[in-house]
Amino acid sequence: MNDVIDALKAALGSQVRTGSDIPLRNHADASGLAPTPPKALALPQTTEDVATALRICHEHGHPVVTQGGLTGLAGGAHPQAGEIALSLERMTGIEEIDAASAMLTALAGTPLATVQQAADEAGYLCGIDLGARGTCTIGGNAATNAGGNQVLRYGMARRNILGLEVVLADGTVVRSLNKMLKNNAGYDWTQLFIGSEGTLGVITRVVIGLHPKPQGLQTALCAVGSFEDGLLVLRQFQQAHPGRLLVFEAMWREFMSVATRICGLPNAFEAEHDITLLIEADMGEDPAGTEAFSLVLSDLYERGLIKDALVAQSRTDRNRFWAYRETPYEYGRFLPEEIRFDVSVPLDRMTEAVAHLREEMPKKWPEAIWVAFGHVADSNIHINVAIQDMTDETKKDVQGLVYDLVSRLGGSVSAEHGIGRIKRPYLSLSRSEPELALMAKMKQTLDPAGILNPGRVL
Amino acid sequence: MNDVIDALKAALGSQVRTGSDIPLRNHADASGLAPTPPKALALPQTTEDVATALRICHEHGHPVVTQGGLTGLAGGAHPQAGEIALSLERMTGIEEIDAASAMLTALAGTPLATVQQAADEAGYLCGIDLGARGTCTIGGNAATNAGGNQVLRYGMARRNILGLEVVLADGTVVRSLNKMLKNNAGYDWTQLFIGSEGTLGVITRVVIGLHPKPQGLQTALCAVGSFEDGLLVLRQFQQAHPGRLLVFEAMWREFMSVATRICGLPNAFEAEHDITLLIEADMGEDPAGTEAFSLVLSDLYERGLIKDALVAQSRTDRNRFWAYRETPYEYGRFLPEEIRFDVSVPLDRMTEAVAHLREEMPKKWPEAIWVAFGHVADSNIHINVAIQDMTDETKKDVQGLVYDLVSRLGGSVSAEHGIGRIKRPYLSLSRSEPELALMAKMKQTLDPAGILNPGRVL
Ligand SMILES: Cc1cc2nc3c(=O)[nH]c(=O)nc-3n(C[C@H](O)[C@H](O)[C@H](O)COP(=O)(O)OP(=O)(O)OC[C@H]3O[C@@H](n4cnc5c(N)ncnc54)[C@H](O)[C@@H]3O)c2cc1C
Ligand SMILES: Cc1cc2nc3c(=O)[nH]c(=O)nc-3n(C[C@H](O)[C@H](O)[C@H](O)COP(=O)(O)OP(=O)(O)OC[C@H]3O[C@@H](n4cnc5c(N)ncnc54)[C@H](O)[C@@H]3O)c2cc1C
Repeated sequence: MNDVIDALKAALGSQVRTGSDIPLRNHADASGLAPTPPKALALPQTTEDVATALRICHEHGHPVVTQGGLTGLAGGAHPQAGEIALSLERMTGIEEIDAASAMLTALAGTPLATVQQAADEAGYLCGIDLGARGTCTIGGNAATNAGGNQVLRYGMARRNILGLEVVLADGTVVRSLNKMLKNNAGYDWTQLFIGSEGTLGVITRVVIGLHPKPQGLQTALCAVGSFEDGLLVLRQFQQAHPGRLLVFEAMWREFMSVATRICGLPNAFEAEHDITLLIEADMGEDPAGTEAFSLVLSDLYERGLIKDALVAQSRTDRNRFWAYRETPYEYGRFLPEEIRFDVSVPLDRMTEAVAHLREEMPKKWPEAIWVAFGHVADSNIHINVAIQDMTDETKKDVQGLVYDLVSRLGGSVSAEHGIGRIKRPYLSLSRSEPELALMAKMKQTLDPAGILNPGRVL
Repeated sequence: MNDVIDALKAALGSQVRTGSDIPLRNHADASGLAPTPPKALALPQTTEDVATALRICHEHGHPVVTQGGLTGLAGGAHPQAGEIALSLERMTGIEEIDAASAMLTALAGTPLATVQQAADEAGYLCGIDLGARGTCTIGGNAATNAGGNQVLRYGMARRNILGLEVVLADGTVVRSLNKMLKNNAGYDWTQLFIGSEGTLGVITRVVIGLHPKPQGLQTALCAVGSFEDGLLVLRQFQQAHPGRLLVFEAMWREFMSVATRICGLPNAFEAEHDITLLIEADMGEDPAGTEAFSLVLSDLYERGLIKDALVAQSRTDRNRFWAYRETPYEYGRFLPEEIRFDVSVPLDRMTEAVAHLREEMPKKWPEAIWVAFGHVADSNIHINVAIQDMTDETKKDVQGLVYDLVSRLGGSVSAEHGIGRIKRPYLSLSRSEPELALMAKMKQTLDPAGILNPGRVL
């Protein structure tokens, strides 16, 4: 039974660790599952090492869990007993920046922040950005098709990825380090691996398309009376200034109430409003852009769509506005245990979704503190529910309530964080039988021995 | 051997035609291959009909060629003797416009122009646009991952497609009519079918994400001294006005010379310049945008990057500028027989590519008229070569020259038109063995009997 470890050690030497030589960080990801030491940890330094490790595990039919920055919230990189962890942490570095093409090639284990900085130094912006930027890896971002703060403008990770190098379950290396924006020569097989959460192959290199840097960042906090009005604000803004919006976040009144009454932030506006919007746009280098930004808002105010608004005049103002949106990172200090949901709801059902929560939550759990907020322009809403001394049963009931609602409204049980282990029981709420069968077929084809991240996604 | 036709007729009645009941239009696509009548033509009206037809063909192991608008240039929809043509032409119609979500659902046989008009009437823009808009279908656009005029701003078809309904080779219907911009619940299997040119399944419905309408369209014709200067103009413009550029087309001097000396257009500028750029931007509804557009250009002129420039003051001007770019549609009237290439070349190798043509073409074919032009911001260059009384051997030699060049520079033999039948012999120039093996595996998994578009792509 230890044949596989022996074989790995014989082939990869000190790149393979066991027992107490395995650092604690490789025992867990950010999902909150109980830490579990893997059977061994492989720390490959090259694509060839990854290929060797997978070939050996494939031959032994031994399960492997791939680890990037371990910031995943769905338990995908969290080891299960007996698994061999394959960490990309030694495969870091920017290999090429092609300024003419506005593209960058990085090893998969490179932290997102390093990629962002390299893009910045080359005069560009990396379109992928999320709170975990310092720790998450570009390979993990590709594997989870990560979203984040600027999806509205630059899309999910998928849209920013032009090429991949992937090692298949049996150790075959497949490479399309495509530096063209257009390549319709055969199937774009790279799409298969983006968002597959390490269950179809191990990503070893990523080519990222870069964007021009924003020049005239403008930030506003706006109050609207309903989600529908919020959407009108979004559309009017997009109409008036196409391509300029970067951020369009909604915070429902329960969220603002927790931010002010529990987390201690000052009231943003005199009156309470149903929804507070955080809006950010890149108005270009021309100073007229600054004016144009405020003009749209005052126009919407006069037409009654916006009830109140604040435009940031300084970096301090901007931080002050963002502080509301960032209160969830502080909930641990103020609230009882939470369940956090990352779901999608079609925009025309969003009001219905929140109305349902407003009706059902107080009936079922009068003590519950719950909030709704998120990247709503992308149909992505986060729902956090905190209940004192939550039992496993209550947890299940809350999950039932939210996931049933999402399923009934034609939404998705995972907007951006993926399925991993944690959401696996709920996947069938968002996906039909034929879809699941098709996914299983793809898994079976690419990983016939089922060694890659078993028990995740499917 | 006619069992399959009998079975189809029994199940689908008058939706199945044979012999002289098959219209000539279904004998050929736009690739120029010799028209070939299919063995039968199926004209399904619903997804269920498509499923029935495929189930029967699958059971009989009988080859099927799927036909959309038949505007494809790679021979993908062109029948081969003995194939049953399955045309989506009766499955047309916009099924839903969700204005709140800025999304639209259409049956796959709907002409692109109909989709564009529906989007327009709902106050939005469809991001997919190409010259064949009146005839090509939205299903065909998805199947070929079509590019076109505005890829720079809105991306290829892939980026505009949010959901698909697909019938698999065995008749299984798989549906993800996703109306969310974010859905990381399991593999995004729809990506597999986009750009697979009908070889993996038949697309029956498409959900398209819509964009705000451009408000302040500005058009310019600019002369630059080199491709590198052209790229600097692109990057400067993107930096100054992020998200505004819609069109950035380059026409090399050979192209402009054919346009003026052969097609009879007036000289655009007094002097001859290496490259003429056609630039279009959406500057927003604010009139200051108009000014800003000209300002960037005059700034670039002062810095010597732009040698000369004309900004359209009217719709007539705009048409006059576009007329240069559209001369290739007229080449049939003026030039001997042409071979047309649609290839991608990494931006940092583009100058090398054109220099090679400039050196080799006159040496090998002194009489040849050749031009280079295209959507260069997307690394997509079109090369047309016209030679009097071209023999098959000359044709092959010219193809050899261009495809070897593209392959050597790390480009793609198909930027947007796909592989189909015509480029199949050249696919291995752009794709490695492991890539081709992976594609073959996907084909084998999804279409084990090999009935869908045999002999195309792979
Ligand atoms: C504070 C915080 C904020 C966050 N904000 C966001 C957000 O806004 N949007 C968002 O989408 N997510 C967010 N996340 C979740 C997480 O950061 C992302 O999913 C991220 O993309 C994971 O990257 P990672 O390198 O940490 O991957 P891991 O956690 O190491 O792995 C995630 C999954 O990908 C697989 N994987 C990792 N690397 C590879 C590889 N090279 N090849 C194949 N498979 C691989 C793993 O097996 C696992 O299934 C946040 C997390 C935190 C802690
Ligand atoms: C004047 C002109 C200009 C053009 N400009 C461009 C351009 O700028 N950019 C560009 O990318 N292309 C361009 N093309 C090529 C062509 O228009 C596109 O490839 C278009 O997307 C094809 O759509 P169609 O409905 O005509 O498909 P068809 O020609 O009918 O089929 C094309 C391929 O897709 C398959 N297919 C069609 N419908 C389906 C379906 N419902 N399900 C599964 N498979 C299907 C077919 O089997 C075939 O392999 C141009 C063509 C012409 C004639």
